[in-house]
Amino acid sequence: MTEAGRFVTFEGGEGVGKSTQLDLLAAHLRARGLEVVTTREPGGTPRAEALRKVLLSGRIAPLGTLAEAALFAAARLDHVQNLIAPALARGAFVLCDRFTDSTRAYQGARGGVAPQQLALLERAAVGALRPDLTIVLDLPPGVGMNRAAERRAARGLRADRFEAEDAVFHEGLRRAFLDIAEQEPERCCVIDAGQPVDAVARAIRQLVEARFLDAQAAAAQ
Amino acid sequence: MTEAGRFVTFEGGEGVGKSTQLDLLAAHLRARGLEVVTTREPGGTPRAEALRKVLLSGRIAPLGTLAEAALFAAARLDHVQNLIAPALARGAFVLCDRFTDSTRAYQGARGGVAPQQLALLERAAVGALRPDLTIVLDLPPGVGMNRAAERRAARGLRADRFEAEDAVFHEGLRRAFLDIAEQEPERCCVIDAGQPVDAVARAIRQLVEARFLDAQAAAAQ
Repeated sequence: MTEAGRFVTFEGGEGVGKSTQLDLLAAHLRARGLEVVTTREPGGTPRAEALRKVLLSGRIAPLGTLAEAALFAAARLDHVQNLIAPALARGAFVLCDRFTDSTRAYQGARGGVAPQQLALLERAAVGALRPDLTIVLDLPPGVGMNRAAERRAARGLRADRFEAEDAVFHEGLRRAFLDIAEQEPERCCVIDAGQPVDAVARAIRQLVEARFLDAQAAAAQ
Repeated sequence: MTEAGRFVTFEGGEGVGKSTQLDLLAAHLRARGLEVVTTREPGGTPRAEALRKVLLSGRIAPLGTLAEAALFAAARLDHVQNLIAPALARGAFVLCDRFTDSTRAYQGARGGVAPQQLALLERAAVGALRPDLTIVLDLPPGVGMNRAAERRAARGLRADRFEAEDAVFHEGLRRAFLDIAEQEPERCCVIDAGQPVDAVARAIRQLVEARFLDAQAAAAQ
């Protein structure tokens, strides 16, 4: 599916620095002359962004986690078809803040939706598309939640549906992301997000270059 | 999928008599000593019934028809896994008031969700399961809407999300069901629901007996 472009997803709990690191990687790749599309989930297309607003508001939560998972799937379906797949088809690097692993962690491991049901919804949304690389940013939940709270305070925002969950939820979430990374070591790479921002960015750059660009340069020689 | 039991769905617009005819067929089959499970969509399981309430209230409508289709899929997924599939596996007749064709007609033909997106959600919800027989009850929308309005008045109810749509919507809906029946003549049978209730019931009984029970009796000889 991603023969032409490269699909890189950023995963992890709240406040681990996903969007910061995504932007830094995008700037680095663009400086190398590559086409980069940055996007996020839920969201990325007008229809999916409208669903994002509702999902993060918590207004859907009373319907249960299966309903939430179905709406994430609907948003993802639209996002993949109208933004991600076309960008990959024309050879772009697509960097996405959260993707299917977040659904597995939030609605699956923490939300109690059966893995089989989640797998069916995931297939409906993404077909055979898989990230070429998933960067799991790992941080003790206390640190991440404090960062998220500071960010919200600076912007005058309230905690969203998932940020508002308790410490047990966020500790379980961290475990869920680490489990996914353990099960799919070829695709996932865990990075210690407790390091300074620059060190994390350097680690990600080296990973992406080794995985995609050095091989490409070698092949071109 | 339905080797053991038989899966019969009732489809058509508002007020065509689906639930009445479903109950009459169930009574007839039970009188013949068969195990019959009657159910409906959206609904059929506690989780799906909770989604039914929200979907028919219209509170989800502002999210768009793709989101509605995803929630119908979530409800259906739960319904198939926890009620329909187990009943079919033990050899029961399952009679269901609306199923995938309603989603194709309401969210697809009338709601504008792309057929490819609907097909993906449908596959997530039902896998390879297909009704063995779909009875499409056909009636000019004006007649059906009057019947639905009388029924609501008798119960002191207001029009739901879909009953409240206009005449053009309901005319298009009728066309959509007839189109589905035309495309899948092996599975679907259109019955004129403008006939007296007894005549409609007789036509359905004859259809079901010819399709399933006479063959079974012949095979048993």
